[in-house]
Amino acid sequence: MNAEIISVGTELTTGVVTDTNSAWLSRRLAELGVTVARHTTVADDRECLGEAMRSAAGRCELVIVNGGLGPTRDDLTRFALADVLGQPLEPNRKAQEQIEALFMKMGRRPSKADPVQAMIPRAATIIENAVGTAPGIEARVSGCRVFCLPGVPREMMRMFEEAADRISAEGGVAPVAIRALHTFGSYEADLGRRIDRFMEPGRNPAVGTTAAEGVISVRIVARETEGASARVLADRDEREIRAILSDLVFGTGSDTLALVVAQLLTKRRLTISTAESCTGGLLAKHLTDIPGSSEYMLRGYVTYSNESKTELLGVPVELLETHGAVSEEVARAMAAGCRARSGTDVAVSTTGIAGPTGGTAEKPVGLVYIGLAHGDEVEVRRCRFGSHLPRDAVRDRTCKTALNLMRLRLTNL
Amino acid sequence: MNAEIISVGTELTTGVVTDTNSAWLSRRLAELGVTVARHTTVADDRECLGEAMRSAAGRCELVIVNGGLGPTRDDLTRFALADVLGQPLEPNRKAQEQIEALFMKMGRRPSKADPVQAMIPRAATIIENAVGTAPGIEARVSGCRVFCLPGVPREMMRMFEEAADRISAEGGVAPVAIRALHTFGSYEADLGRRIDRFMEPGRNPAVGTTAAEGVISVRIVARETEGASARVLADRDEREIRAILSDLVFGTGSDTLALVVAQLLTKRRLTISTAESCTGGLLAKHLTDIPGSSEYMLRGYVTYSNESKTELLGVPVELLETHGAVSEEVARAMAAGCRARSGTDVAVSTTGIAGPTGGTAEKPVGLVYIGLAHGDEVEVRRCRFGSHLPRDAVRDRTCKTALNLMRLRLTNL
Repeated sequence: MNAEIISVGTELTTGVVTDTNSAWLSRRLAELGVTVARHTTVADDRECLGEAMRSAAGRCELVIVNGGLGPTRDDLTRFALADVLGQPLEPNRKAQEQIEALFMKMGRRPSKADPVQAMIPRAATIIENAVGTAPGIEARVSGCRVFCLPGVPREMMRMFEEAADRISAEGGVAPVAIRALHTFGSYEADLGRRIDRFMEPGRNPAVGTTAAEGVISVRIVARETEGASARVLADRDEREIRAILSDLVFGTGSDTLALVVAQLLTKRRLTISTAESCTGGLLAKHLTDIPGSSEYMLRGYVTYSNESKTELLGVPVELLETHGAVSEEVARAMAAGCRARSGTDVAVSTTGIAGPTGGTAEKPVGLVYIGLAHGDEVEVRRCRFGSHLPRDAVRDRTCKTALNLMRLRLTNL
Repeated sequence: MNAEIISVGTELTTGVVTDTNSAWLSRRLAELGVTVARHTTVADDRECLGEAMRSAAGRCELVIVNGGLGPTRDDLTRFALADVLGQPLEPNRKAQEQIEALFMKMGRRPSKADPVQAMIPRAATIIENAVGTAPGIEARVSGCRVFCLPGVPREMMRMFEEAADRISAEGGVAPVAIRALHTFGSYEADLGRRIDRFMEPGRNPAVGTTAAEGVISVRIVARETEGASARVLADRDEREIRAILSDLVFGTGSDTLALVVAQLLTKRRLTISTAESCTGGLLAKHLTDIPGSSEYMLRGYVTYSNESKTELLGVPVELLETHGAVSEEVARAMAAGCRARSGTDVAVSTTGIAGPTGGTAEKPVGLVYIGLAHGDEVEVRRCRFGSHLPRDAVRDRTCKTALNLMRLRLTNL
C-alpha cells in the first residue's frame, strides 16, 4: 500500500516550527507495511490544502493529513476536506459528546469557538481524541482513504493508533522490515561502490546510503514477496552487507559510536580518561552522554595551553618545543601521561589544528593526532581532515575517529 | 515572490531522517522577502522527483530542491532535472575542476563514481560548492527559477548564500528587515506577556517568539511601508523591546551565549578554566567552540569521580562525605580549587544530577549547582531544572546557565 502525508500549518511553511510528525508517521506506517512516497506541507490556506488532498488522493491509496483541526480561524482542514468531498459540514453527535465530556473533565466550559470541532463532512466518520479537544476525521476521496489527525505531536501519535488499527483491519498491506547499519571510516562513494549490486533501482530489498557528519548509514527496506518474508529478506541482505563492510559497521538503529564504546567499556569492566587539546572537552562530553557513564569515565583533562599539558599530563617541555603541540610525539606523551596520572585502563588524547585560523603549510587546518594508551602500548593515529571543513566539523570528526579507534581496539582485545 | 521547497531522499520519506532543511530554507527565504507556500518531500525516484519539480514550477516563481546530488546510484536530482528540461546531461568543465581541486585538498583521488557530480543539463549553470564535492545546479523550468542544492545541511546552507545573492540580484522581492534578539533566563509565556503589545496579529513589524533549548528569541520582521523603510521600523521595535527585556537579551543574529562570553573575556583580557562534573566536558567544549579560544581558555578538568575532585581540585574528602558531590559546598570548593590550581582570573564549576538515574527525593534529577570564582569571591547558583528534562537537556541548560552567569558577571565588572 502506498501513502502520502500532508502536514498543515503556516508555522511549518515559514520554518518557525520544524515538522517532525511526517518522519514519525513514515516510520510507523513502514512498520505496518505501508510505503510513504511523499510528504507535502502546506500553509493554512483552504484552497491549497484542498488541492494537495485531491492530488495526493489521486496518486495513492492512503493519505494522512495532520494539523488544522483546532478551533481557531486558521484551522481549515475540515473545510478543505468538505470542499474536496463536495459535501457540507454537519455537527456530529458523537464528537459533540466527546468534546463536552473532555471539557467537564478539565473543569472548563466549551468556548463559543469549540462547536466547530464537532463538525465533519456528511459521509465522514470521527476518530476519538482521548487527549485533546479535536476529534480526527476519516473519509474516502475517490477510493483513497483519508485520515485527518491533529498537528500536536502527542495527540497525533495517540490517535494514529486508532487509524493504524483501521488500516491493518482492511488488509492489503505487505509487511516491511527495515534495517539501518551505521558505518564509520569510509567515504560514501567508496562504500556505495562496495555494495553497488544491492543498490540497483527497483530491487527488493531496497538498499540506500545516507551520510551524516562522517557516519555513513546503509538502509535496507525489505518487502514481503510470495517466496519470502520481509524479515528473512532483510536479514539476508544485512548479513551479506555486513560481511562486505566488515568492521566499518559499528552499530544499528539508534546506536552511536559513543554508545558502542560505552557498552564495550562496561562489558569489559575497563575505565577510561581523556586528555584533549583541539577537541576542548567534546570527547569527554561524548563519553559522558550515556547514563551511568561514571562506571567507566573517571576523569578528563582539557589541556588547552602548553603549560597545562606539562603540568597536568607531564608532557616534557622539550617535546613541545622540538615538535610543537600538534605532533605525534605530543599526542603520545599526552595519552601516556593521562593514563599514568589517572590510573585508568585506557586513555585517549587529541591534539590538532581545528581552525579556521592557526594553520601553516606544514601543519594545515584539519591536521590532528589522536593517541590511544592501553596497557603499556600507545598507538597514535595521524588524521588529515580536509581544510575545507569548519571548526565544528574538524572537532566532531576528531571525536568520532577517536571513538572509532577505541571501538576497534576494544573489540579486538 | 512565491517559492516552494522540494527535499529529496528515501531516508526522509521513510522517516529515518527528519527534514530540517525545509524549515531553515523557509526562514532564510522569508528574510529575502520570499513567501514559501509549500514543502514537498519525495523518495529517491526519478519519475516522482521530476513530477514534483514540474508541478512546483507550474505553481510558483522559485523552487529550491535539496538532496540527491551525491555520487551514488540513488542520487537522481540531476537526472530528473534533465528529464524535466528535456535536455541531456553534459560534463561541466568548471564543476570538474572544482571537484578535482577539492580532492587534491583532501589528498584523495577522485573515484570512478565521482565524475557524475560534474554532469549538469545543457542549459543549466553550476553553483560552486566550497565545502563538499557536489556542485549545485541552477536552471529555468518554463519561467520558474530552480536551484538544486545538496542535502547535507552544512553544504546546503553554505551554497544557499550564492543562490540568495542570485535571487536578490533579480529583484521583485519586497524589502524586509529582520531582527532576532536572543534572551536567556525567562520563560516564553512570561516574556510574551511583557512584549504582548508588539505581538498583535497583522501588526507591522510582525513580532513573534521562538523557544529553543532554553533560549527564547524574539523575531522582528518589518515590511517597508509608504511612510517608513523596513529598517527604520525594525530598529524602532528593537530599541523598545530591548528596553523592556533589559539584560535578559544576550545577543542578536547568530550570537550564542558562548560567543558573547568569549568576546567579554577577550575584551577584558581575562583567562578562564573549568571544573565539570555533570556536564562532563560540555562547558569546556562551549568555551572552545570559538576560534582563537586559546587566548582565554587555559584548561579544563572533567572530575567525574570523587577521587578526581579531591586529587585535581583539592576538594576535601570530608566535604564530599558530609554534603555529597552534588552540593553548594562542593561546587564552591571545585570553583575555588580550579581557579587556584589553574591560575586563571575566572573559574567555573558544575555538579548535579543529569539523570535519568541517580536522583533521590532530596536530590532529584535536574538539581545542579554552578560555582563561579572570580578574584577571592565564589558565587554559587542552585538550579532546579525540571525532572521531566532528558539528560541531554539538563546538561545543555546547566552549561547555558553557567555561561549566562559569566556573562552577567563580566558585563557588570
